[in-house]
Amino acid sequence: MAVTPSSVSVEPSDRLDLDPAFALHRGGKLEVRSTVPVRDAADLALAYTPGVARVCSAIAERPELADDYTWVPNVVAVVSDGTAVLGLGDIGPAAAMPVMEGKALLFKQFAGVDAVPICLDCTDVDALVQTVARLAPSFGGVNLEDISAPRCFEVEARLRELLDIPVFHDDQHGTAIVVLAALRNAARLTGRSLGELRAVVAGAGASGIAVSRMLLDAGIGDLAVADSAGLIHDGRDRLNPAKEALARDTNRAGLRGSTEDALAGADVFVGLSGSTVSEEAVASMAPGSIVFALSNPTPEIYPEIAARYARVVATGRSDFPNQINNVLAFPGVFRGAIDVRATAITENMKVAAAEALAGVVGDDLAADYVIPSPFDERVAPAVTAAVAAQARLDGVARR
Amino acid sequence: MAVTPSSVSVEPSDRLDLDPAFALHRGGKLEVRSTVPVRDAADLALAYTPGVARVCSAIAERPELADDYTWVPNVVAVVSDGTAVLGLGDIGPAAAMPVMEGKALLFKQFAGVDAVPICLDCTDVDALVQTVARLAPSFGGVNLEDISAPRCFEVEARLRELLDIPVFHDDQHGTAIVVLAALRNAARLTGRSLGELRAVVAGAGASGIAVSRMLLDAGIGDLAVADSAGLIHDGRDRLNPAKEALARDTNRAGLRGSTEDALAGADVFVGLSGSTVSEEAVASMAPGSIVFALSNPTPEIYPEIAARYARVVATGRSDFPNQINNVLAFPGVFRGAIDVRATAITENMKVAAAEALAGVVGDDLAADYVIPSPFDERVAPAVTAAVAAQARLDGVARR
Repeated sequence: MAVTPSSVSVEPSDRLDLDPAFALHRGGKLEVRSTVPVRDAADLALAYTPGVARVCSAIAERPELADDYTWVPNVVAVVSDGTAVLGLGDIGPAAAMPVMEGKALLFKQFAGVDAVPICLDCTDVDALVQTVARLAPSFGGVNLEDISAPRCFEVEARLRELLDIPVFHDDQHGTAIVVLAALRNAARLTGRSLGELRAVVAGAGASGIAVSRMLLDAGIGDLAVADSAGLIHDGRDRLNPAKEALARDTNRAGLRGSTEDALAGADVFVGLSGSTVSEEAVASMAPGSIVFALSNPTPEIYPEIAARYARVVATGRSDFPNQINNVLAFPGVFRGAIDVRATAITENMKVAAAEALAGVVGDDLAADYVIPSPFDERVAPAVTAAVAAQARLDGVARR
Repeated sequence: MAVTPSSVSVEPSDRLDLDPAFALHRGGKLEVRSTVPVRDAADLALAYTPGVARVCSAIAERPELADDYTWVPNVVAVVSDGTAVLGLGDIGPAAAMPVMEGKALLFKQFAGVDAVPICLDCTDVDALVQTVARLAPSFGGVNLEDISAPRCFEVEARLRELLDIPVFHDDQHGTAIVVLAALRNAARLTGRSLGELRAVVAGAGASGIAVSRMLLDAGIGDLAVADSAGLIHDGRDRLNPAKEALARDTNRAGLRGSTEDALAGADVFVGLSGSTVSEEAVASMAPGSIVFALSNPTPEIYPEIAARYARVVATGRSDFPNQINNVLAFPGVFRGAIDVRATAITENMKVAAAEALAGVVGDDLAADYVIPSPFDERVAPAVTAAVAAQARLDGVARR
């Protein structure tokens, strides 16, 4: 960033824009537009005063009319406090904005959901919960994003309790849905059920914990989770509540040591840690192993190396096969929830999203195709339909 | 609103949509769109990960880059708590949304400002201030709207103190700017200066107080303000701080009684009260009187009656001449402030807006043309330029 502003202007040098990512971001990536014409006084008298007053009065009398006569049900707040942005960590709310804008444009592009990026200047759990709750009348859903663990668990849990609109922490559940979908297909490809698989998850932040929880719910055979201090096991000291619960529910073999220690004989590796695993460790996995090296931009092990030993390899990157990308989940999850005016996103709805996503692959299943492309136009409609149907079954649909 | 929902669905009857205002509002009036293409993995890698990470990192290092590489500087939060919506009163945040959406679309249409309606589920002054302050990293300005007096004064004052982005309560200052512009032209038409005029303002809510303050600042000869208990005068009991200040600064003649009592011999009437004034009272005004009957949809006195006595008559309605409409002010005020990245909207900037707005009328000045039409395309550019120039003069421009 060796750019010196000129003495007469804070306008940065155009040199930054030589990077196409900066050039694309100039002026931001979003706009708010009207969906109705206001060409003359007659239009203005309908869209604004005096006509709008009749609509407001009607909603005041019958609050459910807000579902039909405002944009609220279709608008998701993409909320972050900027504490865990991508792999960059705690860069603050202002610097987090480009990610949240990107998320918002993906919501629109892939599912027609209007999304507003909201970067908050507070990091205290109470403050985050209180602020989002106060914003709730303006939004049909809340997508929490890049809030660091373990605060993110409490923020989400309390908001789910408080609000009657969908609340979804994408770093947790979006990742978990896509991992489960890919793992179901990888298991199918190798002729096994999830119950026959022993998995190792590297990383016990938001995504590591949510992926572990979802794999447990889906019936994975056994699972060990490692954080930066090594494998989580019953009896380890100073665990936060989320890790304490994992210590109870995982690692039935009582493994201790590192991720690499646990990989010996394991069937599945899921990397969500930003660290690396050695070729030797992957080589020590059971035959037909499944390696999801999801850290971005540097996977825990590069796929060309992992593929020497593993049957299926996936990464978080678009330049390798099998990209595990949250955009496969969150647009359809919210579209489906919004379409039926769901009051929550249940665990079943997440599982239904994963199954629908896995199903898109169908008979084309192959080692380099266990998950669809983010640009596969079948994905969002399939996820949407599954989530909406499950919301009805779960009794959380309002229409 | 005699519409009965069917027993099998909460979908309202289409009968509501027989009213064109409802038909226009179906599905809301806004959408969020991407301004950049995301057609393939290469686009995605720039607009989202990994490319976006470089932009985030740069902003984390040099916060001023958010001005260039996010949409934030061009986005205004239209914030309401739903306590004083149009003439409808305290209808709550959800029912206020159609007005805030309307405001947002006018921001875009008239000045290219992206605006996001934010209806908050809190009414306590501390809570409102705290919530908007936490939202501030996401917005380039705050337009407060339809927050009841006297809370609105403290909310605005505290936010102006706390934030380094423009904060503007449109019900106060938007109205005041347009009234001052129209009154300057009406005075010019009748060959008088503001200092020669004695005015009566009916209404001491947000707009009544702001209009009074702005007319005092502009040098009005004398001014008396009435609330629902009658004329405000020095010594009246139980006044809130804003009215107490008015009691000191206005009504030098010490008039008591009603609005109508004060109109005898007055030069200007500004109605912002929702009440009525009699034909007799208007008839008692001085020759060449100026009547702004701005309550909506029912003016304090109908213009065809007022015109029997008054030289200039204005209302808040589009179906009569001289419509006093805030849309003449707020789009250009924010556009001008944003263009120079102003850290505040000063009193001088408001006066500059009023003068620019008055100036658009130019040589076409006539009794039925003291203020331009909301659809006059010269208005927003004129206001924008004046506000931006004044921001530079006042030292609040950042570029």
